[in-house]
Amino acid sequence: MSFKLAQRAHHMNPSVIREILKVTEQPGVISFAGGLPSPETFPVQAMQDACNRVLSQDGKSALQYAASEGHGPLRDWVAQELKQQGMNVGADQVLITTGSQQGLDLVAKVLMDPGSRVLVETPTYLGALQAFTPMEPVVEGVASDDEGICPDALRRQAPGARLAYVLPNFQNPTGRTMSEARRAAVAQVAMDTGLPLLEDNPYGDLWFDQAPPPSLASRHPDGTLYLGSFSKVLAPGLRLGYVVAPRSIYAKLLQAKQAADLHTPSFNQRVVIEVLKDGFLLRHVPTIRARYQAQCQAMLGALEKAFGHQGQGGDDSLLWNRPAGGMFLWTRLPSGLNATDLLPLAVAQGVAFVPGSAFYAENPDPRSMRLSFVTPSVPEIERGVLALAKAIALARTRSVAALA
Amino acid sequence: MSFKLAQRAHHMNPSVIREILKVTEQPGVISFAGGLPSPETFPVQAMQDACNRVLSQDGKSALQYAASEGHGPLRDWVAQELKQQGMNVGADQVLITTGSQQGLDLVAKVLMDPGSRVLVETPTYLGALQAFTPMEPVVEGVASDDEGICPDALRRQAPGARLAYVLPNFQNPTGRTMSEARRAAVAQVAMDTGLPLLEDNPYGDLWFDQAPPPSLASRHPDGTLYLGSFSKVLAPGLRLGYVVAPRSIYAKLLQAKQAADLHTPSFNQRVVIEVLKDGFLLRHVPTIRARYQAQCQAMLGALEKAFGHQGQGGDDSLLWNRPAGGMFLWTRLPSGLNATDLLPLAVAQGVAFVPGSAFYAENPDPRSMRLSFVTPSVPEIERGVLALAKAIALARTRSVAALA
Repeated sequence: MSFKLAQRAHHMNPSVIREILKVTEQPGVISFAGGLPSPETFPVQAMQDACNRVLSQDGKSALQYAASEGHGPLRDWVAQELKQQGMNVGADQVLITTGSQQGLDLVAKVLMDPGSRVLVETPTYLGALQAFTPMEPVVEGVASDDEGICPDALRRQAPGARLAYVLPNFQNPTGRTMSEARRAAVAQVAMDTGLPLLEDNPYGDLWFDQAPPPSLASRHPDGTLYLGSFSKVLAPGLRLGYVVAPRSIYAKLLQAKQAADLHTPSFNQRVVIEVLKDGFLLRHVPTIRARYQAQCQAMLGALEKAFGHQGQGGDDSLLWNRPAGGMFLWTRLPSGLNATDLLPLAVAQGVAFVPGSAFYAENPDPRSMRLSFVTPSVPEIERGVLALAKAIALARTRSVAALA
Repeated sequence: MSFKLAQRAHHMNPSVIREILKVTEQPGVISFAGGLPSPETFPVQAMQDACNRVLSQDGKSALQYAASEGHGPLRDWVAQELKQQGMNVGADQVLITTGSQQGLDLVAKVLMDPGSRVLVETPTYLGALQAFTPMEPVVEGVASDDEGICPDALRRQAPGARLAYVLPNFQNPTGRTMSEARRAAVAQVAMDTGLPLLEDNPYGDLWFDQAPPPSLASRHPDGTLYLGSFSKVLAPGLRLGYVVAPRSIYAKLLQAKQAADLHTPSFNQRVVIEVLKDGFLLRHVPTIRARYQAQCQAMLGALEKAFGHQGQGGDDSLLWNRPAGGMFLWTRLPSGLNATDLLPLAVAQGVAFVPGSAFYAENPDPRSMRLSFVTPSVPEIERGVLALAKAIALARTRSVAALA
């Protein structure tokens, strides 16, 4: 008995990261590889109190089927929250999703045909590539620099493209943030060319010293689909995110949502609004920011100590950036090395990372690596960076030996 | 600004039932329309105890990202449970989904190309039609009778079809159950022709006097994808279901799952296994069965009283079947009437139902209606049936008047 696969299924592949995590999840290995928020930030007690209140006061409704749009009070909360961030959003534009990953799936279903051109940053979020793949678009990388996607390149590639997917705040994988000027320019390109934007903002609340500039959706609301998430500010195990959509496209996303899983768990939605309703995030999120900033500084400090510069050395040294928030920093190996080959050496030294190649739609940079600073503790970060430096030194020795 | 829709999005439509529910959800209207389990059956206290235990004992893990396959202990439980029902299933074949609706979405993504022929019962579950639609198959109805899908018709239509979707136990919408002989014959057709089966079993535990015959998956495990759900035996607001897949196709479904929403909420999975682990369903499900059986009998009794026969009258009377479990019964209006026209008259009399037409892939029977007996109380059922009888009498008077 064999099943005849749909054409699209031939394009689907296991997540590279997932496969890497299997290799690197060994006892004693310090992991800079995962994209997991620190469980120390999860508000377990607040969740427990909220579960008890929801089930005691309204248990039967919380456990019943519910509207595909999402729970009304949670949609209201999202609209209010985004208004405070300068977006003119009605609750009727908010679609609650089973994590923001589902938002990517729904948008792909509604807007991508086989062969549709879809533009992404270089590099881009791997999960978005995976969500788009089943709809068989042709994904094109757009040149990007430290300030984000390049507007001139975007303008050149815009004609005929179905959308551009951008992650302006503390991007996964690079940790970089789109500057104010860049946002204005990208929104202008979208307005001029009619190119829809898909703006993904899972990390925007995780800033260190100052909030990032206003969203693309606030600048170009009619042409931007905006994805948000509760995974990084509350907990990912709840699988709660949302799409904010222009009214012209909302109904189709809702139909796709209903077909996909009827609705996001009503229980989870009610528990989360119960946690949120008295301004919980105003007290809670600053504690996450402080923790991640300290861990980021520990990683930057350890890198400076191990490599003797501030990340901007020459081509024969490890390079790294200095994120202003989020969970990741982005590094580039010295000339002659490659991250995929380095990984087993690093694991042998007791540290893991994700080679950057997986994050490119086209033309991967084999020297790039993503380092997460949020899951390990500060002492682990320091030990992990030392182990990484040892692995790099070892790889360079081997590389020199191979040339000799 | 306008978005260019994917071709598939033009085929998506709002759920007919959902639109009907909006019309019929008026105060004072008794609803036989919804497919909602009775909230009286939801184990609120057990859920609350389980939430407290999970969050106290293992809160951080319960709130973290988790494996796309699902929570190990829950997958083990499903495999064990199905083994007791005669299916030879390993936990490695169980994929936990965000409700069994998501199972339909994943199967459609992996097995249906645009134009693929997909076979369904006549009538069939509307949510499956909605889940399949975005993948643009051509859905064909297969002749079906009181024992389920007809094997001869299935054999004729099997060549070249991608799969046959069947709901053997207390089907939605008809409430009918596939007989032992019919199951054997359908499995034989699948084995002879290589036609994959997609077996959906949300209602199988809700039998009244005796358990239904063994599943199609137990007869033809290599060629059957099996969908199960916790929505009817625990609560739908948790959105927990599962696919059991032959090992040859499991990896592709897993990749589709990962792309769709990364994983089903880990918190919900841990809470549910905490509820289930000490044999809770053995005590709980019999209470649901007894309740639904009493409500079904009340509806049958009220119909007999109102229409003066046992459901098998002539073409000039209302006809109905006698389900052996589940949530629905299926009725056919007297000759000359049509359920869509009857609905506003019925709502005016204080009762609502779903016209059956929505449940047909092709050639709808405009006289058919689905009645749910699980949400209203016994006195409401009795009043609702009287109101339905009045509406039918009124419609017949009008129909006669129109002919005169």
